[in-house]
Amino acid sequence: MAAEPAAALTATEAARRIREGLLTSEELVQSCLEQIGRAEPQVKAWTFLDEAHALAQARAADERKRSGAEIGPLHGVPVGLKDIIDTADMPTENGTALHKGRAPRNDAAVVAQLRAAGAVMLGKTVTTECAYFHPGKTRNPWNPAHTPGGSSSGSAAAVAANMVPLALGSQTNGSTIRPAAFCGIYGFKPTHGLVPRTGMLQLSRTLDHVGLFARSLDDLALLAESAAGWHDGDPDTRPRARIPFREVLAEEPPVAPMLALIRTPHWDKLDDEAKEAWSELADGLGERVEEVELGPSAARAWDLHATIMSAEMAANFDREWRAGRERMSAPLRELLERGREVRAADHLLALRAIPAVVENFDFLFRDRYDAILTPAAPGPAPKGLKSTGDPAFCTLWTLCGMPAVSLPLMRSSSGLPMGVQVVGRRGFDARLLRTARWLEAKLSA
Amino acid sequence: MAAEPAAALTATEAARRIREGLLTSEELVQSCLEQIGRAEPQVKAWTFLDEAHALAQARAADERKRSGAEIGPLHGVPVGLKDIIDTADMPTENGTALHKGRAPRNDAAVVAQLRAAGAVMLGKTVTTECAYFHPGKTRNPWNPAHTPGGSSSGSAAAVAANMVPLALGSQTNGSTIRPAAFCGIYGFKPTHGLVPRTGMLQLSRTLDHVGLFARSLDDLALLAESAAGWHDGDPDTRPRARIPFREVLAEEPPVAPMLALIRTPHWDKLDDEAKEAWSELADGLGERVEEVELGPSAARAWDLHATIMSAEMAANFDREWRAGRERMSAPLRELLERGREVRAADHLLALRAIPAVVENFDFLFRDRYDAILTPAAPGPAPKGLKSTGDPAFCTLWTLCGMPAVSLPLMRSSSGLPMGVQVVGRRGFDARLLRTARWLEAKLSA
Repeated sequence: MAAEPAAALTATEAARRIREGLLTSEELVQSCLEQIGRAEPQVKAWTFLDEAHALAQARAADERKRSGAEIGPLHGVPVGLKDIIDTADMPTENGTALHKGRAPRNDAAVVAQLRAAGAVMLGKTVTTECAYFHPGKTRNPWNPAHTPGGSSSGSAAAVAANMVPLALGSQTNGSTIRPAAFCGIYGFKPTHGLVPRTGMLQLSRTLDHVGLFARSLDDLALLAESAAGWHDGDPDTRPRARIPFREVLAEEPPVAPMLALIRTPHWDKLDDEAKEAWSELADGLGERVEEVELGPSAARAWDLHATIMSAEMAANFDREWRAGRERMSAPLRELLERGREVRAADHLLALRAIPAVVENFDFLFRDRYDAILTPAAPGPAPKGLKSTGDPAFCTLWTLCGMPAVSLPLMRSSSGLPMGVQVVGRRGFDARLLRTARWLEAKLSA
Repeated sequence: MAAEPAAALTATEAARRIREGLLTSEELVQSCLEQIGRAEPQVKAWTFLDEAHALAQARAADERKRSGAEIGPLHGVPVGLKDIIDTADMPTENGTALHKGRAPRNDAAVVAQLRAAGAVMLGKTVTTECAYFHPGKTRNPWNPAHTPGGSSSGSAAAVAANMVPLALGSQTNGSTIRPAAFCGIYGFKPTHGLVPRTGMLQLSRTLDHVGLFARSLDDLALLAESAAGWHDGDPDTRPRARIPFREVLAEEPPVAPMLALIRTPHWDKLDDEAKEAWSELADGLGERVEEVELGPSAARAWDLHATIMSAEMAANFDREWRAGRERMSAPLRELLERGREVRAADHLLALRAIPAVVENFDFLFRDRYDAILTPAAPGPAPKGLKSTGDPAFCTLWTLCGMPAVSLPLMRSSSGLPMGVQVVGRRGFDARLLRTARWLEAKLSA
């Protein structure tokens, strides 16, 4: 039996072996680079990769370990970064010709935190244009004729293809949960403001979240522990005690969780196979799941999201619009055109309507339920590379800033993965992962 | 020689006498009510006053004092409240027919804080319509043919007329500093976010400030100490240690302050007498004052302010606009019409431009100066009651959220007071009052 390549290890296992001296960071990174060498021609997940620089970071990590210095929880573990996350040592081009050659001076706050935890920044992964809809070159690792989803296309595909165990992306609508589902991995969008966004391309202060990708729930917990933090440059973060993601995830829930299945007004977008799979999943959960209807205030969420996202992107891309809108894709240009017409009063009233939507779910969680169960996407990754698929099943939770995780628990007849989305209460991120683990075990039983 | 009526005492002196058992709160409130009885027919500062309820609060304070219970720094001292500040025990009608009969269930956060410090809420003072420009019934105590200024018209006039030693108002453009100057008293707009606005009529989250009125700097310090605070309902406040306003004010500045005289682009609005007075004031300060030019980013402040105020008011008065705009004054209706046309992107870009304006002044303070000296208004209170005067000399400091105080240090040939505005660095509120005291002493020497 051939030994499993190090690149196929989970981050948790790789970090353990490095800590115990059974594996070096250099071996791990070398294994990841070899896997990239094999899979990248088909998957095209990376937009910047300097192998020598990645190996130099790994060797420095190994050197530190050998010196006996204290090491962090991600020591020696490589991470892929969506190319909208600034790095002081690599370019960050935001998926647009307008930012070609952009070389930021500073690391994004979350990158600095991961480096402090010992992680190696492997390279930059493909994003759609400005993290909006126009796709990059990446293909779905399960079938190159299908989209990997977006906008964090490269991060999801790279993790799915065993090129890197962990990656960061972002989500302003469905940019983490959807590609995680399409690529058959674990995606996690923590509560709004839990992970600082300083040094990332800003689309919308209200809606932007950092997203995490991994191949297990343990790995999401490991990554989230170092990614969560406060930064002065992100006014939606706040100083808070460390969240013990891994400890909470390792606990049994004190009582069996109760889940609320929410179909949302977009349920009819589900293909027949997905509907069938959801019906089976609900049967499998028996009395632990109940269907819950959305109240009328929640039904406005999609319109509120469209108003807020377009208006805030219009302001954030004002310079690009004035200087080079002819170099934008038509969808981005059209979005910014719409956004520039949004009235300030309508934008402010949309912002003000969010708490009433959130209150629906806070009530649900206080009343009876531990988490919400809902599709991550209407079905598996659609065929074709011109579109990254439909984010409609993510919009509501992004608007509310609620933590959401996509679990690769379903599969289509064509063999493509489908995601189950589990959504938790704002600020109860670790509990959400624990509920997700319970769900996973329950369904595999 | 007739004894000075208690109503004429400063709050500091009245509080001291009450604490030492030389005066009761009931005597003080009774004296204020008598002065109101004399002056109110001409000044018209109050929109709601229930004498029995005010006296009942005073007697309760006296009872508490007699019981030996601990008492707060404002124990037994009456305060007037602008009628946009919610009170659970009195109506709050916001100066508009649309809110006639409005009886809030809760005290505003700042009212709750003042009650906790022992203060008696004497009654509600006249505001312009929705704290914008359309005047209420109040007249200038120095000359009833002149405006008291606005929008905190009644609070400024009541304090000036010895009806109450302390009052609260608000400032979104020039609504505290201008009426304080026109009425010849001390007005103080602390740093944005220092005093919580929860439970007050919201015009603009970005621009709204609580304003303080008194007849001495000591009284402003006394009031500010209890007014400053954090409230969960005001996202621009934050938990922080108590600011020792009175202790700082009692100190000598360690070195003689250096002041920056800033004329602003509106200097030509000054009448000849005011220009003459400013020239004398600068002479009196000698080498302690230097004229400083505004940079180009500061010159945009007035446009930024207009965009932000109109857009945010359009959102905040959306319901009133839809339900009853025909009952609004023409100026308010026209403002809201303009505000409803502001684009979200322009509003957001205006918000984003504020830090660059603030940075001008932070540089000034780091470099050389302790405070900025500038007019509070173009001259004394204009004749007539149709307008509350021009806020142009306040706009810049309101936009920047910088602390500002108006001192009654000048007088026109017609005997009307004129205000000297002293502006400090954000967050250095107590230091600003100390510099203002130094200035007062220097000019009277």
